[in-house]
Amino acid sequence: MGFESKSKLFNVKIIDLDLHRNLIIMNSDDAEELGVVTNNIVLVTAGDYSAYAMVITSKTVTQPGVVALSTQTASALRVSEGDMVGVKPIGLPTSFNALKKRMSGVKLSESEMKSIIQDVVNGIYGEAEIAAFLISQLYHELSEEELSYLVKAMVETGSKLVFEETVYDVHSIGGVPGNSKVALITVPIVAASGLLIPKTSSRAITSPAGTADTMEVLARVDLTIDEIVEIARKVKGVLAWGGKLNLAPADDIFVNIERRLSIDPEQQMVASILSKKLAMSVERLVIDIPVGRGAKVEKVSLAEKLAGLFIRQAGLLGVTIRVALTYGGQPIGTSVGPALEAREALEALIERKGSRSLIDKAILLAGLVMELSGRVQPGQGEEVAREIFVSGKAYEKFKQIIEAQGGNPETKPSDIPIGSHTYTLTSPLEGAVTHIDNTAISLIAKACGAPYDKRAGVKLHAKVGYRVNKGDPLITLYSDSASRLETAVRLLRDLQPIIVEGMLLRTLP
Amino acid sequence: MGFESKSKLFNVKIIDLDLHRNLIIMNSDDAEELGVVTNNIVLVTAGDYSAYAMVITSKTVTQPGVVALSTQTASALRVSEGDMVGVKPIGLPTSFNALKKRMSGVKLSESEMKSIIQDVVNGIYGEAEIAAFLISQLYHELSEEELSYLVKAMVETGSKLVFEETVYDVHSIGGVPGNSKVALITVPIVAASGLLIPKTSSRAITSPAGTADTMEVLARVDLTIDEIVEIARKVKGVLAWGGKLNLAPADDIFVNIERRLSIDPEQQMVASILSKKLAMSVERLVIDIPVGRGAKVEKVSLAEKLAGLFIRQAGLLGVTIRVALTYGGQPIGTSVGPALEAREALEALIERKGSRSLIDKAILLAGLVMELSGRVQPGQGEEVAREIFVSGKAYEKFKQIIEAQGGNPETKPSDIPIGSHTYTLTSPLEGAVTHIDNTAISLIAKACGAPYDKRAGVKLHAKVGYRVNKGDPLITLYSDSASRLETAVRLLRDLQPIIVEGMLLRTLP
Repeated sequence: MGFESKSKLFNVKIIDLDLHRNLIIMNSDDAEELGVVTNNIVLVTAGDYSAYAMVITSKTVTQPGVVALSTQTASALRVSEGDMVGVKPIGLPTSFNALKKRMSGVKLSESEMKSIIQDVVNGIYGEAEIAAFLISQLYHELSEEELSYLVKAMVETGSKLVFEETVYDVHSIGGVPGNSKVALITVPIVAASGLLIPKTSSRAITSPAGTADTMEVLARVDLTIDEIVEIARKVKGVLAWGGKLNLAPADDIFVNIERRLSIDPEQQMVASILSKKLAMSVERLVIDIPVGRGAKVEKVSLAEKLAGLFIRQAGLLGVTIRVALTYGGQPIGTSVGPALEAREALEALIERKGSRSLIDKAILLAGLVMELSGRVQPGQGEEVAREIFVSGKAYEKFKQIIEAQGGNPETKPSDIPIGSHTYTLTSPLEGAVTHIDNTAISLIAKACGAPYDKRAGVKLHAKVGYRVNKGDPLITLYSDSASRLETAVRLLRDLQPIIVEGMLLRTLP
Repeated sequence: MGFESKSKLFNVKIIDLDLHRNLIIMNSDDAEELGVVTNNIVLVTAGDYSAYAMVITSKTVTQPGVVALSTQTASALRVSEGDMVGVKPIGLPTSFNALKKRMSGVKLSESEMKSIIQDVVNGIYGEAEIAAFLISQLYHELSEEELSYLVKAMVETGSKLVFEETVYDVHSIGGVPGNSKVALITVPIVAASGLLIPKTSSRAITSPAGTADTMEVLARVDLTIDEIVEIARKVKGVLAWGGKLNLAPADDIFVNIERRLSIDPEQQMVASILSKKLAMSVERLVIDIPVGRGAKVEKVSLAEKLAGLFIRQAGLLGVTIRVALTYGGQPIGTSVGPALEAREALEALIERKGSRSLIDKAILLAGLVMELSGRVQPGQGEEVAREIFVSGKAYEKFKQIIEAQGGNPETKPSDIPIGSHTYTLTSPLEGAVTHIDNTAISLIAKACGAPYDKRAGVKLHAKVGYRVNKGDPLITLYSDSASRLETAVRLLRDLQPIIVEGMLLRTLP
């Protein structure tokens, strides 16, 4: 329209405020003159560097002619106090028309999708626009082409790791308590077989433990890109936290808003997982979809639909994939919470046995990964993986990984500290355990303090199908805080997550 | 779920940051201990006062044990530096389930709708949730009941003005340049007839002038509630700005996000208008829907649908209503921009004549208001209103209103300063004006600086249907800034907003 706005120059102050986005504090008079108001986005430039930042106005924090940049913004622009920066209002974002199209269900081209994701990553959009992009998917599903454009755009707007060999990976969509430790067994088996598996994973967001939280009990997980590449070269297996690696950074922005709105568009979940994997250069991937009551996917038919989505997208994106539907109707293994799960995984590797829901699952997934390599015949993966597990090679490999990641490879399960405040619930009668409620177990473990208190969580003494006698322990709660334990115990009584056949549920009134 | 979080006490600092919402800066360590992160909402309490505020974390702006409150937040809590406040994380907002229901198209009850609006006004929700509420309306239209619940909730969560007599009002949905001055004639006519018409209106948001901007050229419009009640009692008519009166405050929050997303759900527009009117205790209301090319509503059929929505809602809410569809296919009167429009309205009142698109419209609307009183027979309103206008009583009343609002009642049109930099476009040939483009006229007036530069705008020397000779002036642009005028002139050449029959539009190449 010919409205070329000019950049004005300002003296820089730095203010240590963390808003999870670039921030500039401007004097109200300067803002008015520039034609911007609080919450607007401006382009800030310093030499060759530029950043989009959100405006907050003030009458006194900055005098006219001075702007205060948040530490993060100043560092993105490589400026120090006293330097000059240019500030310029921005018009409608380039991708705004594409966003409007998406909202009305019109299919986007690859470049339109790319422009939206680029603007999201650049911080041009606020929460409202990001919410609009995500919510549009609830009403107008992305086409398969649009979804692949989305994944590609999410990868291209972030960092990408490059390895010298073919990269393998395994990823569980999660949602079942106790699942975070599975990778601590799968990854060493695969790496011990000679395949490269530099796994990055997230910390728990809404669950009591993520794989990164659990691995962190034993070693560092906040590895840099260089460290990951180096460790992968040396020991083939990595169990790192992906959070600070700038892999598909749009995903973190999306996940934050999805959580706020408590929405989880299926396609966005697929995009989230595949984009992180592509950013790690993964070419062969096994996806685990736990299915069962209280899991993220409750019905096999829905899991099959989701699996189809993964398979078609992987095809469009050039990733060889296998999807496993595993049983997720009760917790995996017998523990929930970072330290307890790290203990359980380590014990299983050392003793070469353990809860079947853990061991069998870890071996099965490792076997599938190995079959993708072509070195193992289809249908033979599980056997080969079990051999590596039982021979102790998996434990040897895990020790190498722990050491490479700066942990102590000689750590024994009992060396791992767990919550000092405990409470054990015993069975009120003899009978069979008929139900363990995933959701309730997660809530109780979180009430104990997991994942932030790594020592917090729960241990299950019985699983569905076990027979128990009156007075046998059913579950033990661990916490480092007496008051959190108390809250968790109240919740345990309220939710009754473990049902023994014939148990009295309530007396009324 | 039994997670009762406790309030922690902090020492107060005050920081002058304006974020259009409550803000608290917490030391990162305090935030972690409290279990909150940047962007979370916390409840801040001080004695009997409490406020929800958004958290920004910092390592240095506040030391542990100290929080910095924005000036607005401190004033809401009546605290000063050194006072103590309690800070407590909040769980899921009470209305979150209702919001989720709305997103999936399930009808809301009155109390569910109220709870959402209450949480919006309390600042518990961020942009993402507010966007979700608005966007849901694009995909799942509100039912008529839900819409009436929405209007009631918007009124109940704000201030309400009470008058001793029946309150009348007239409101245009706008969208046509030059329309802001109509009320400067309608309101005095109605008030001169003895009816109470305390009109509040908004400043321009996306247009070159709102009624409040134009009236402000002649008198104060930032009146307090007490002043409005007092002036209404004294002179019957008021032309005030409603922005700071806390009338249906949810509306301002919604409008801000709608503008960002460039969405304008029809029902939300109806809710916006009716809630502001109900907060002013309006019982009899005339709604003006300008219809025509470049207006907000382009087709009569759509205007009729919108009118039906207004009529049914007014019925549900106990407001007696008339809706007028007026011609909005070209600008109203001959001027666009606050000072130019104030001049035009004042001139019309003094000289008792003027552009018919202005005079006839103002009289027609005033007549409809008067018919609602029952004192004037149906069909007679226009005649009675014209008599008041022509007799000079309307001008006398306008002078009283100007004086009551602190302006100079003796101001003459030529006393009103207009932009010193001007440019006049003349007709390149003899012929009839066949088209004036509303959208282009608005853009050009805004490029001149309107509404912020009150003296900026455009004057039309010819309207559609006028015959012009070669060299006759078509339009004059006014601005206080030479560079803005230059931009506007470029835009004028580019957009060609006035077409004279037979005019050459372009030569190519």
